[in-house]
Amino acid sequence: MTRIPFETMKREVKQAFVSAGMSEEKADMCAQVHTETSCDGVFSHGLNRVARFVDYVKQGLVDVNAEPSLIKSLGAIEVYNGNRGPGILNAISAMDRAMEIAKNYGVGIVTLQNTTHWMRGGTYGLKAVEKGFIGICWTNTESVMPAWGGKNTRIGNNPFVMAVPRKKGPVILDMAMSQYSYGKLQTTRLKNELLPYPGGFDENGNLTSEPGPIEKTMRVLPTGYWKGSGFSILLDAVAATMSGGLSTNEIDKEQAGSCGGCSQVFIAMDPAQINGEEHSEKVVDGIVEYIKTSEPEKENGEVYYPGENSAKNRQDNMEHGIPVDEEIWKEVLSLAK
Amino acid sequence: MTRIPFETMKREVKQAFVSAGMSEEKADMCAQVHTETSCDGVFSHGLNRVARFVDYVKQGLVDVNAEPSLIKSLGAIEVYNGNRGPGILNAISAMDRAMEIAKNYGVGIVTLQNTTHWMRGGTYGLKAVEKGFIGICWTNTESVMPAWGGKNTRIGNNPFVMAVPRKKGPVILDMAMSQYSYGKLQTTRLKNELLPYPGGFDENGNLTSEPGPIEKTMRVLPTGYWKGSGFSILLDAVAATMSGGLSTNEIDKEQAGSCGGCSQVFIAMDPAQINGEEHSEKVVDGIVEYIKTSEPEKENGEVYYPGENSAKNRQDNMEHGIPVDEEIWKEVLSLAK
Repeated sequence: MTRIPFETMKREVKQAFVSAGMSEEKADMCAQVHTETSCDGVFSHGLNRVARFVDYVKQGLVDVNAEPSLIKSLGAIEVYNGNRGPGILNAISAMDRAMEIAKNYGVGIVTLQNTTHWMRGGTYGLKAVEKGFIGICWTNTESVMPAWGGKNTRIGNNPFVMAVPRKKGPVILDMAMSQYSYGKLQTTRLKNELLPYPGGFDENGNLTSEPGPIEKTMRVLPTGYWKGSGFSILLDAVAATMSGGLSTNEIDKEQAGSCGGCSQVFIAMDPAQINGEEHSEKVVDGIVEYIKTSEPEKENGEVYYPGENSAKNRQDNMEHGIPVDEEIWKEVLSLAK
Repeated sequence: MTRIPFETMKREVKQAFVSAGMSEEKADMCAQVHTETSCDGVFSHGLNRVARFVDYVKQGLVDVNAEPSLIKSLGAIEVYNGNRGPGILNAISAMDRAMEIAKNYGVGIVTLQNTTHWMRGGTYGLKAVEKGFIGICWTNTESVMPAWGGKNTRIGNNPFVMAVPRKKGPVILDMAMSQYSYGKLQTTRLKNELLPYPGGFDENGNLTSEPGPIEKTMRVLPTGYWKGSGFSILLDAVAATMSGGLSTNEIDKEQAGSCGGCSQVFIAMDPAQINGEEHSEKVVDGIVEYIKTSEPEKENGEVYYPGENSAKNRQDNMEHGIPVDEEIWKEVLSLAK
């Protein structure tokens, strides 16, 4: 396995973005996020998305020079037009502004319309907890799976993120509304393996753990069957109404790449303003400790709190280098030339 | 099947609450909610919870005369102590206040500490949409299932509600973090049936659709496996930190009945302030229509939007009376004497 040092990866990714027309400063911010994402073990949205982003820029689906512009302020909510700028930069700016608002009102919400793919949603939860805020955010997407009881794609996987600060390591959830991503289906199929639990329906309408038939039907299982289907629909409705932006059915019509023109919500809350930071830390530590006292299902197993594994990956990969797929790494190097 | 007219059921439930020491006015509000809940088809949290509520009052676990008191205001967030008053009344008051705040700031959040069981969470989403607001709310609970990878109960089912207004029928999700409730396991077992999909682990650690073995191990499956486990933990952490109240592990120590001393979050947002009510209605109608154009999985089947079925139940049961279990109805009548 090839492992690339963090700074090397970031340098090359940045250069790929500069070559695509981005300013040094913006390319640096985006490269930082892609590299951190791979470093945390979420390869699908880190290094592996660099080439597609560059392709979207070349196709004119992302405007590397666009900045978000304020449409409306209601007090504790502000609505921005993302102007199809880089999704990462729009989202960082949105969560930053939500935290500023939360300093004054206890909570701040920024909604974004007309933005582009934000890569890993967890990034913006981490941005919030680094500054001591609770971060909640989600995006809608184009349709990728059927609503519960249907056969054709009608709902997005609409990743939903919730993050709570904790000095010993934040507690963070980054959850798509499909039980498995198409990326997971593909890698599992290429390894000739089965999914750990059924992931969708085959051509005969039977649940299956084989990835191939699910890729064909596109009848991916929503997270928790009818529940994830419902949650996806609600996340879409709130994002579209509160941003004045596109809903999943309208994104489908746009045909502007994955998440092209999507709508997003960023919520920041300040737990330290309730009973002080010390109390908040104690509460979250107590929750984590309770989980960690679980009797593990597997002998010598361990029960993890949400976010624990990515933090471990980050530590390990900072030390030993970030694992890469050699073909993908070569492609990024060629884009960086 | 015995069916009881709405007004008859409400009258008897109200009388049961008055007999337990509640004021006429408060008993009327609580009876309205229990009756609406059964009318919408959520029997488990409607008529079927009346006797347990009365029992909790008699045990001193719920103080029928307590009112919520303001602890802190941060601007767009207010924190209240529920003082172990009736969960329904505390929650109605919290969502009402969140909507008042949202009129001024676009968003309003009320958190509640030290409250009691709110019965059906969807009630407070419906309260929000009736007034044209988006309502998001959740509660933590005592632990009812293991965290993912563990064998002993560590996390709550922490119902999460999201509701968006729509004149033709609101879109509303009311989702617990366990794939099935213990109530569902019990009724399925009594009918000698299987769950539609696996609901938990048996004594040998295998997934099973048989309810009996799951009731024994208490290894209920979180909604979407690891995802619902993580979501439950985050909902708990946000509710406890932002209310200054108890987390699931602390509720477990209280031993004050189901949800005794729990923490809750109520968020109201005003979509009409973004682009006007008409635009918001159009967006949500578009989302619903897209879902309804799904090709159904089953011949002559139908794909429902979240909230559609309860609205249909309500209409049907208002017309023909609310179905009741005769034993449960007799018990309520005896409490009403």
